[in-house]
This record gives sequence, structure tokens and C-alpha cells, in this order.
Amino acid sequence: MHRMKILGLIALSLASLIIGILIGHFAIIPPQLSWLRKMSKDGDLKYSKQLHQEIQAEEIHKNLQFFSRRPHIAGSLQDEEVLVNYIHNTWKSSLDGSKIYNYTVLLSYPNASDPNYVAILSPDGVESDISDKVEKILSPDQNDSTVVNPFNAYSPPGVIVGDPVYVNYGTVEDFQYLTRNLSMNLTGTVAIARYGKIFRGDKVNNAGNFGCTGVILYSDPADYVVGSLDRVYPVDWWLPGTGAQRGTVLISDGDPRTPFYPSTDSAFFLDEKDIKLPKIPVTPIGYNDAVKYLSKLSGNEVPNAWKGNLDITYRVGPGFASPYEASKIKLYVKTYNEPKTIRNVFGFIEGQYEPDRYVVLGNHRDAWVFGAIDPSSGTATMMELSRALSKLLQKGWRPRRSILLCSWGAEEYGLIGSTENIEEMGKVLGSRAVAYLNVDLALAGNSTLRALATPILHQLLFEAAKKVENPNPDEIKAGRKTVYDTWVKSLPSSHDPNVPRVGELGSGSDYAPFLQIIGVSSADVRYNYDPKYSLSSYPMYHSVYETVDLVSRLMDRGFYYHQAVARIWGEMALRLADDVILQFDCVQYAETLHRIVKDVQTSYGPKLLEHNINLNSVKKAADEFLEAAKALQSRIEKINRENPLEVRKINDQLMQLERAFIDPLGVTGNLHYRHVIYAPNEHNLYAASSFPGLASAMFDIENDPDQERRWQQVKKEISVIAYTITSAASTIQDPSNIGGGSTEH
Amino acid sequence: MHRMKILGLIALSLASLIIGILIGHFAIIPPQLSWLRKMSKDGDLKYSKQLHQEIQAEEIHKNLQFFSRRPHIAGSLQDEEVLVNYIHNTWKSSLDGSKIYNYTVLLSYPNASDPNYVAILSPDGVESDISDKVEKILSPDQNDSTVVNPFNAYSPPGVIVGDPVYVNYGTVEDFQYLTRNLSMNLTGTVAIARYGKIFRGDKVNNAGNFGCTGVILYSDPADYVVGSLDRVYPVDWWLPGTGAQRGTVLISDGDPRTPFYPSTDSAFFLDEKDIKLPKIPVTPIGYNDAVKYLSKLSGNEVPNAWKGNLDITYRVGPGFASPYEASKIKLYVKTYNEPKTIRNVFGFIEGQYEPDRYVVLGNHRDAWVFGAIDPSSGTATMMELSRALSKLLQKGWRPRRSILLCSWGAEEYGLIGSTENIEEMGKVLGSRAVAYLNVDLALAGNSTLRALATPILHQLLFEAAKKVENPNPDEIKAGRKTVYDTWVKSLPSSHDPNVPRVGELGSGSDYAPFLQIIGVSSADVRYNYDPKYSLSSYPMYHSVYETVDLVSRLMDRGFYYHQAVARIWGEMALRLADDVILQFDCVQYAETLHRIVKDVQTSYGPKLLEHNINLNSVKKAADEFLEAAKALQSRIEKINRENPLEVRKINDQLMQLERAFIDPLGVTGNLHYRHVIYAPNEHNLYAASSFPGLASAMFDIENDPDQERRWQQVKKEISVIAYTITSAASTIQDPSNIGGGSTEH
Repeated sequence: MHRMKILGLIALSLASLIIGILIGHFAIIPPQLSWLRKMSKDGDLKYSKQLHQEIQAEEIHKNLQFFSRRPHIAGSLQDEEVLVNYIHNTWKSSLDGSKIYNYTVLLSYPNASDPNYVAILSPDGVESDISDKVEKILSPDQNDSTVVNPFNAYSPPGVIVGDPVYVNYGTVEDFQYLTRNLSMNLTGTVAIARYGKIFRGDKVNNAGNFGCTGVILYSDPADYVVGSLDRVYPVDWWLPGTGAQRGTVLISDGDPRTPFYPSTDSAFFLDEKDIKLPKIPVTPIGYNDAVKYLSKLSGNEVPNAWKGNLDITYRVGPGFASPYEASKIKLYVKTYNEPKTIRNVFGFIEGQYEPDRYVVLGNHRDAWVFGAIDPSSGTATMMELSRALSKLLQKGWRPRRSILLCSWGAEEYGLIGSTENIEEMGKVLGSRAVAYLNVDLALAGNSTLRALATPILHQLLFEAAKKVENPNPDEIKAGRKTVYDTWVKSLPSSHDPNVPRVGELGSGSDYAPFLQIIGVSSADVRYNYDPKYSLSSYPMYHSVYETVDLVSRLMDRGFYYHQAVARIWGEMALRLADDVILQFDCVQYAETLHRIVKDVQTSYGPKLLEHNINLNSVKKAADEFLEAAKALQSRIEKINRENPLEVRKINDQLMQLERAFIDPLGVTGNLHYRHVIYAPNEHNLYAASSFPGLASAMFDIENDPDQERRWQQVKKEISVIAYTITSAASTIQDPSNIGGGSTEH
Repeated sequence: MHRMKILGLIALSLASLIIGILIGHFAIIPPQLSWLRKMSKDGDLKYSKQLHQEIQAEEIHKNLQFFSRRPHIAGSLQDEEVLVNYIHNTWKSSLDGSKIYNYTVLLSYPNASDPNYVAILSPDGVESDISDKVEKILSPDQNDSTVVNPFNAYSPPGVIVGDPVYVNYGTVEDFQYLTRNLSMNLTGTVAIARYGKIFRGDKVNNAGNFGCTGVILYSDPADYVVGSLDRVYPVDWWLPGTGAQRGTVLISDGDPRTPFYPSTDSAFFLDEKDIKLPKIPVTPIGYNDAVKYLSKLSGNEVPNAWKGNLDITYRVGPGFASPYEASKIKLYVKTYNEPKTIRNVFGFIEGQYEPDRYVVLGNHRDAWVFGAIDPSSGTATMMELSRALSKLLQKGWRPRRSILLCSWGAEEYGLIGSTENIEEMGKVLGSRAVAYLNVDLALAGNSTLRALATPILHQLLFEAAKKVENPNPDEIKAGRKTVYDTWVKSLPSSHDPNVPRVGELGSGSDYAPFLQIIGVSSADVRYNYDPKYSLSSYPMYHSVYETVDLVSRLMDRGFYYHQAVARIWGEMALRLADDVILQFDCVQYAETLHRIVKDVQTSYGPKLLEHNINLNSVKKAADEFLEAAKALQSRIEKINRENPLEVRKINDQLMQLERAFIDPLGVTGNLHYRHVIYAPNEHNLYAASSFPGLASAMFDIENDPDQERRWQQVKKEISVIAYTITSAASTIQDPSNIGGGSTEH
């Protein structure tokens, strides 16, 4: 019995000891271990739900009223002081920090007391059919003394008199039609070009290259009105004949006086004579004015594709028909350049585990006039998103990575704020920015989501759109519950109707310097009008009629479409900031590369073969890339998430892949564009070309007198593409294999 | 009693429980925690000791015998097959992996059956005083059928006849002396230039720019012999009169047919006519031959600084003096270019915690002839270091970061192997290479260590040198126990005699593409001859006499100097691979920048002031940089080493700082050199200029007819420097402050 007792005591003490060991080992978790475990888990999804709930449509409406109450052109007091201070103060008080960055850059304005105009000039010097110098006020909220009259930024001033010529959209092909097919000599003529299809700066550049001495840009109803001209604003949202599209005609990004360096205090500013600026005067007019000149043109009737929707017979000119045959067209431009201070504002949310990784969100702030669509619909959305994020912070959320919110200045003039920023902070952002998510305007229509992105972000975009409720009740009734459902139905991808089409990134907005100079994976989202309209842009683009009235009465009554954009934007940011492993899809990139190669083979293959050139090296590189992408995918699946360095290693590879597509020597000879896979088309800054270097080398190659040089260039471009893809593949291969090593040892 | 018993039982069980909890919590460490703790500690110092012990002088001797037994010029079977395979097999079997990289590049050779020579050509066409076509054999080990005769790589072939002119070292200033001070017209003359002071390619380029049609390069005893000419090899290590210095005259790095892209299978190769190659024929001769021509020159006596140590009156020419006044000098060059396959070999040791961080060690393998000094003294050293590292691996050592060993091909032709590698793998190495440690030749003499490095590595160099035993017993007797002690005594820094002088990195060896293209912090070390000799290089440089006999009999009998270099190299590698926090000294960089600014102010300040230019923006930037460096230093002191992401964040900043000094647009207009603080001098590729862009803009500015343009350039360069330093400062500021955030929240 005594022995039993002792055994009992031992058993008791042993049991207690074991329980103690178990408690000590498993229940009392050392702080480092609990930290490791927390860090190995994706962000709590409850915050995603909370964020969606927190984003209020009515708040966005209020924001829009504030931001587009008055004109706020870049360099104005309203934009650089009132709005900047508001954003700065809001972020300073609600986020972890906020900072203002100043740059002194060259801007351009029309002369307020001596406005630009177009007229017919009779042989005895009498002007008639003078164009409107201001846009007619159609609703009281457009009445503001600080409205800037229609003009094209960076046009040189000048009074030009010459024979008018209608040049359609002013593309290289359009001009070639006139000079080659019609054997016209355009020297000394004044081009009348309709807006649309390509970037207006390219139209002006082309006109100058073909000998024109001036350009008149107008908006044809064919491109800006669907249906009857009775239904234009203020009845519906279509462009009225009095509306003129402002816009820059600069063909480079950033302050043209400081290419590739920031316009800070210590900057070296080029003399204006050494800057690449537009060479011939240009100004925009509405179609009520354009019809006066176009209806009087002499010459051949235009081909069908050149016809607009004005009720006239479109002719090419040159010159006016009887009884105006002795008259000329006169272009009176007093636009001038002026250095001004512009500002960017940053808001910052510090990451908990990886504060040195930044998820960057951006929108520009400056508008040509009221900008209720462009960009204030985006600004109103960003401010609501930042408010919702600050609420999350109050509720205990703290992202794994940092989030950076950016309000850019002077985007309209040529992405100046964002470009100067990348020129100043490129080293820091180049090594730390995870991705750049841009919303320029949030809403160009209420039909479907529209997104541009590099392939690595497609899947993330889809996932985010799937999580956001459809803002259109009719669509919900039709069974399309989410933004994604409408998107995939309205805009199916051309290669797979089961996923939505995601466009390629050109240089239309502030993602360009992020993607093109430092190689940060980027996306741009908005709600858009019906793709079936095939408009060149939303109708009121850059006119005085972009006001809250337009948006709240005719485009997004309850601001639910804005709200949907805010939610998608926020959802993407949350995933990128909170997921342990970045949701970057390298395999998608690889498959897209293969599709591009296939398309290029179809377009150029036979022509290349005639010169004994093939795309085998590019195909081989793409195969290598696909294999590396798949191998990375399977390494990700096997990763030990509790090893923060293993996680970081993979994320670094994912984050840096896009950088590998950057060629510091630039593509198509332009150092502003360095992305070998996607860069703006040489003849249309807005559109992205795949393999832009090759596209550029092949453009109109048949007509180049120096065939030898051109085909050598084609070979070189193919070599650069093959090299770049191979190089990109090497960045996603196992880092432990660089020296022929193996992970087994 | 019963109650007491229960209390006792409770107490016992409680005590057991507590002990259990304590054991469970503290004694049974979860694997993650033990891993975190191990990872938070620097590498065990016992491995450093073991490495030093493992490195054997005698092994290096054996290696040298193997590597320099036969000539091994780039592109030869001996270099690209025999030596490559040996290295590859050695590393494959002793390290974690090894890999061979092939490139097809343009090389250059003399015509073996029709050798280059120089002669005096009489008016009736008779050649006399013909130079030696081969170097005389002075020791049996130089007797090898594959010795390549003296030549300068990439010289065009040609037979040139003209008036000889002595141009001293052939610097721009030397040529200016002839044309400005002596009003000589050099057009059509043949320059006789002595080797030394500047890169030979610059001599040839200058000669061409000043109108010369050919160049003869020779080694003057003043630059290659100290003391009596009786004491030359084989008696002592001084250059005999029969020795000629081979070497490239190409003024760019890498395969000239593929600038900035790798010469792989898919490369686009420029036509030879489109390549920048030397324009005028050139070949080297020894001083026994040179004296024949120089002694016969007519014209003015040279200034004192131009006098060499030949027993003649040095005259400038042009032409020969009586009785040779009607004779010309003839230069017969049959050197030709040929595409060849060259190879790099990588050896890899995989890091345990950060396999995606590479400490890169490199040495080139190709030699002009036997290369027992250049580069095989370095190769022999690297192979012994790799053997010692493999022994450490066997003993259980595994570095925190990966180590990459590189054997470069075709360095002598213009850093071709390493440049092609950086062109191919720049994206991978640019984002992962921690530092590049180069040893070209390990031993140019036995007097003192000599190091070149960017300031961030100075402290690490000093620490390593302090740990290595002095290889010179006399120095130890004099109380200088370590390599460092002799170093600081022989080569004290000009600004602080308590630390050794560390030179700036020009473009003399394979560190150039690492530092200049992708911005990897780099160092280059060797044992050197007495700095008081003020030689231009070690005497036998690039001659046939660089054999094991020279090294083992006259320079490093026991191979202890080689051993010391291996130990310093290994010690640096071990610290960089094993320390938790990289031993990178940003404050040193900041202080160096301040010194450079001060020097520049002294040299240029008054002249700048005359044009209303000052260096205030650069000073301000340097102040900002210093402040950021100090703040980083104090963040490092407070770091939590058990947080791997905090450690990685700091290390990323340290590692990437050097990248911030890279301007992708290049400095001095040359895209091969992109480091704004240090790049090769525009007129001497070997030497580094501080603020090279500014130095280049200021060079001989007084004599430029376009003063306006030049002073604008000066302003621009100052702006680029200020911008770059500010940008670099931003990369070491707290990543949590980028958006005006604060670490407190």
C-alpha cells in the first residue's frame, strides 16, 4: 500500500509535469512564435467586408461636389492650394502621415484677354465665320470666372493663314492617303482634323511632318454623339455643338525642360529653344463651328471611312469651294508657356511586417475645367477609399505592407506630377513599390467595368471584381450579381470568352512612368460606357460641361458606380497589402507572351520570312519563360509560410518580374518608354503596342528607301525581345540555381 | 493530517506543473524559435579561423604552376577548354554547383606567320633597324609554340609610313603641348608613345584625334625599371629591353558588336563597319628597339617631364635627324579581328537563410601569354580559396547568404566576359548581388596590400586586413603583425594617416560592369610593389616573361603573399555572407562625399564663381546624405535581430545604396559608365574621376570655342550630381517615412 502511494505520487507529479510541459510548450506561445504565425496568415477577410461596407456612395457624391465646384487647372490656386491643402490635411489627420512634393514645371495657358479663334479670311482681309471664343454656358454651374477657354497646351502662339485641308483623324495613314493616293502637297496648308482614335499630340506632330503650318482640332458628332443631335446636353450626356475638347499636344512625359530629372530646386532647366515642343499652332473648336469650314471645302469627296456625322458632304480640300475659292482659313493662337509650381500629395499607411513594401494607389487632381469626370470622379473615389481605410485602421486593422496614396498634379499637361515624382523617387519606388493601381477618372459611363493592366495583375482584377456587388439593379435582376458578371458579358476577352478583356497600358495616365520607367506592375480601372458605342472617349471629355450636374443627373445618379470602383480599387489594395504571397500571376504573363508571339507571327511572319527572318528566338524565350513561371508556381505551392525570408524571396521575385521587362535604353528610341513588351505606339501615345520596338520597325517598312537599314533594325528588335524575355525568365527561376546549384545538397 | 496530505499533494502536483511549464516553455524550443535565434546571430567566428588555417601557400603555388604552365589567351583551347573544364569540374565536385556560360565575341590576334614590326625606311625603300618580331626567350619555361607575339588587340591592320613624333605618354595634355606650345602639325605623323600613366587605348585615341596615322607603344625604363639596367630579368624582376607590353586598345567594355546586350545565340551583331573600333594601326615594342628610333629623332629637346631613362637625348621630332632626315618610320601591322567563343565559369555555395543574396567573388582567367601574374596569381588564389570554403562546408559551415565564384573570360580584351555576363544577368545580379569582390592579379609585388573600393566597403577591408597575419617576417619583427599594419604605414590615406589609402575604382578590371552598370558595391585587392617606386604597373606587365619562374623565384618565394590575399578575400566574403547586418559603412560614404565636394570646390570653385556657378546644391545634398547615413546607423544599433524582416529591410537599404548612384543615362555621355560619383576618367579609362561628369565638363574648358554650351553643360552636371546624391540619401532614409509617415502611431 505504501508502495502504491509512492507510485501514485510519482504518477500524479509526472502527469502534472507532462501537463505542464504541454501547457508551457503549446499554450504559452513565445511572442516571436505568435508573431511568426500571425505573419504567416493572409489578412483577415473581415476587413475586406468592412471596407466594402464603409465605402459610401453619398460620401463620394459630397466629395465630387467639393472637388469639382470650381475650375482647377494645374498651376491654379484652386488646384495647387485649396485642393492640395484639403487632401493633405485630411490624410494627415486620418492616416499615418502625409507629405506635399513641389515641382516648378513648364505649363501652358490661353491668353484670357485675347482668346484663340478660327475664321475665314477673304482676299481683302475680312474675317467671317469666326469660331466661338468661349463655350456657351448651358447650365448655371458652368458659370465661373476662372474657366479657361478652349486651347491646346504647348501650342506655339501664331497667326496662320492657309488653305484648309480635311485630314480625317490625322493619323500617319490619313496623311499618307492624301499625299500618296491623292498626290496632294500639304506644304503650307492648315489641317482640320477630327478628334478621336489617336492622341491629339500625334495628330499635330503628323501634320507638321507632312508640311502643314497649323492644325484645327474639332469633335465630330460621329465620335461624340450617339443618336440624334437633339439629345445632346443638357437633355442627355452627349456632346453639344458648342463643346470643345481641351488637351495637351506635348509628345513627352514630365516637365519638358528637365527630361529624366526632377524639376526641383537644384534642377538644370533647358532653355525653351532646346526643348522638344509642338512646332505648329493648334487650337480646338466645337462641331457647330467646324461645320462652317468643312461644308465649304473644295476638292474630292472623302472615302466612306473619313465621313463624320455632320449634315454635309465631306471633302478633303485643299482650299474652299466657290464662292470662297479665294479665301483662306485663319488660325489665331495666343497660347503661351509659363513655369508654375505644381504639387503632388502623398498619404501613407505604414505596413506592420513589411513597411518597406509599398502598394501605391494614385489619381490625378488637376482638371482642364471643372473636371467632374476627369479626374474628380476619381479623386472623389480615392478620398472615400482613404476615409474607409482610416476607419479600418481605427478598428484595429494594420496591413502587412505599406499603402501609399498619391494625388498627382498636372497630369493633363503630360503626366507631369507623376513623372517628376518617378524622376525624383525612382530609386526608392523602383526597389519597393509592389504595384501601382491607378484610377484617373472613376466613371466614364455606367455600362461596365473597364480595366487596363499588365498580365500579372489580371487574376487579381478578376477576383476583386467578383467580390463587388453589381451597381446596376437591372443587371442583378438578370442574374449578374457582381461587377465581374457584367464585365465578362459586355467585354469578353478575344481569346477566351470566359474571362473579361483587360486592355494593354499605353501612356494615357499616371501609370505610364511607374510601368515604363521603373517597371512597376500597374493597373487602371474605371466604370465605362457601352463598348458598342465605339466612342473615342466619353462625349464631354475635357469640355466645360464636365460638371456635377452632368455626373449626378445623367451618369451616376446614386453614385453607386463610383462606389463599385472604390470597392474594386480597395479590394485590390487590401489583397496586395495583406496577402502573405502576392497574388501575381506569372503564368498568365507567360501565356499572354505566347499569344503576342502568335499574333506577331500571323501579322509579320510571311513578310519576315521573305527576308529570311524568323521569330524562333522569341518563341524559345517565351517557352523558357512559361517553364520558369510554372516552376515558380509550384515553388509557391510548397512554400513554408512561417519562414518570412522564404516568403520574401518569392515575393521579391514576383514583384521584380515586371522590372525585368524594362530596357534602360528605351524602346522605339524613346527613353520615356522602356517596357519591351508594352509601350505606347510610336504613332499613338494613347495605345499600347505589343513588342513596340518591332511594331515600330515594321511600320510602313515597304516605303522606306533604306531597306537594308530597316531590316537590320527589325533583326535587332527581335533580338532585344528574345533577350528581354529570357532575362525576365531568369529572374523567376530558382535563386538557388544561378550558379548551377541545386536545392538538394 | 489528512488535510495536510491533500495540501501536500496539491503542492507537489503544482510544483511539477510549474516545472513542466518552465521546461515546456524554455527548454523545449520550437524549431521556428531555434531557427529565429540562430538566424539572429552572426556566423560563428571559428569558421573564420578555420578558413585562414585551411588556406595553404603551397597549394597556391601548385595552382599557379597548373594555370600558367602554358599560354592561355582568350579564345584559345588552353583557356576556353582546358582551364574552363578544370575549374568547372573542381567546383562541381566541391561546391553546391557550377555552370559554364558561353559568348561568341569579337577578339583580335596578330598574324602568327606575318608578325608586326617597326623599321626605319630609307628614301630608296630599304628597311633598317627592324624591331624584334618576337620577345627573346630568357628562361626555358617561356619556350612554347602557342606564345602570341606582341600586338595591340583591335588595332586595324595596315602599313603606315610617316614622320615619327615622340609624344611622351600620349595624354591629351602631351598632344596639346606639341600642337599648342610647339605649334606642330601632327597630321600624317606616327606617334611614338611611352607606356604608362594612362590607358593605352586612350593614347591611341588621342593620337588619332590629333591627326597621327599610326602609333608605336614602347616601355621606357623610367616606368618599368628601378635602378641599373644590369639588374633586369632574369637577374631581378625588372623589365628587360626585349620585353613588350601587349594589351587592348579598345575604348569600350564587352563585345563591341553587341553594346549593352549579351553575345548569346539570339544576339544581333553589328557589322564591323558599324562598330567603334580603334582607327589607326598600333603595335608595341621593347626599349631595346625603341632606343633605335628615339635616338635618331630631330626637333626640340623634350621638357624634363618627358624624359625617360634611356641613355639618349629625348627629342620630339617630327622626323629623324641627319643622316636619317630623308627616312621615315614604318609601322607594319597585320593584327586581325575574329569572332571566338569565350567562357565564364560560376561556382555556387547556397546560402542557408538568404539564398537569394549573392556575395560575388571574381577573377579573370585569360592571359596575354603565360599570365603567371596577370591573372593566374589571382586564379591560383581563387581556386585555393574555393578549396578552403569547400572544406568549411564539409565541417558543417553553411553561410547565411549565397556565395558566387566567377572565372571570367576575355578580360584582357576589354572586360568582355564579365561585361557580357552583366548584360545577360544584370536583372538578377542587380537585384540580388550584395557586393562584388574582385582579385585580378593577386600579386604585383610584395610590399603592401593595395585596395580599390567604394567607400561603403572601406571599413570591411580594414577589418579583414587586421585579421590577416603579415606575410613579411621583417615587418612582423618591426612590430607590424598584420597586413593592415604594413598597409597603413606604407600607404596612409591623404586625409587621415591613421587609416590606409583605398583607391577609387576606374575601369581596369571586372569590377567595372558590376559597379558601373548595375551599381553593385565593389572592391579589388592585391599585394603590390613599393608605392615609392611610382611605376605605372609591375615591370613585366603583359610580357612573355610573366611565368612561374618570375613569381616563385623573384616575387613570392613561399607564396605567403598570395596566401595573405586569399585570406583577406576569404575573410571579406565570410563577413558579407555570414553577418546578420551587412558591414556596409554609409557614414564613410557620406564623409567621402564631403571630401570630394571640398576638393572640387578647391579645384573649380574660383573658376565656377567667375560664371556665377556654385556648388551649394551639391553641398546641401551631401549634408542631407550624411544626416540620413547617421540616422540609418542609429536605426541599425537599435534593430531587433530576431525579426528577419527588419534585418532584411536594413540590409536591402545598405545593399541598394550603391545602386542609387547609377544614372541609367550614363555619365560623360558613355553608357558603359553610369556611376555618378566614380566613373573612369574620360581621358584615362584606368583612373577613376570623382564626379566624372563635372570633371569632363570642366576639362580644358578655357579652350572650347563654344563657351556658352560648355558652361551650360557644367551647370547641368552639377545639377545631376546634386540630384543623384539627394536621391541616394532618400534610399537610406527610414522607409516608413516616405509618405511623411512616422514610426510612432
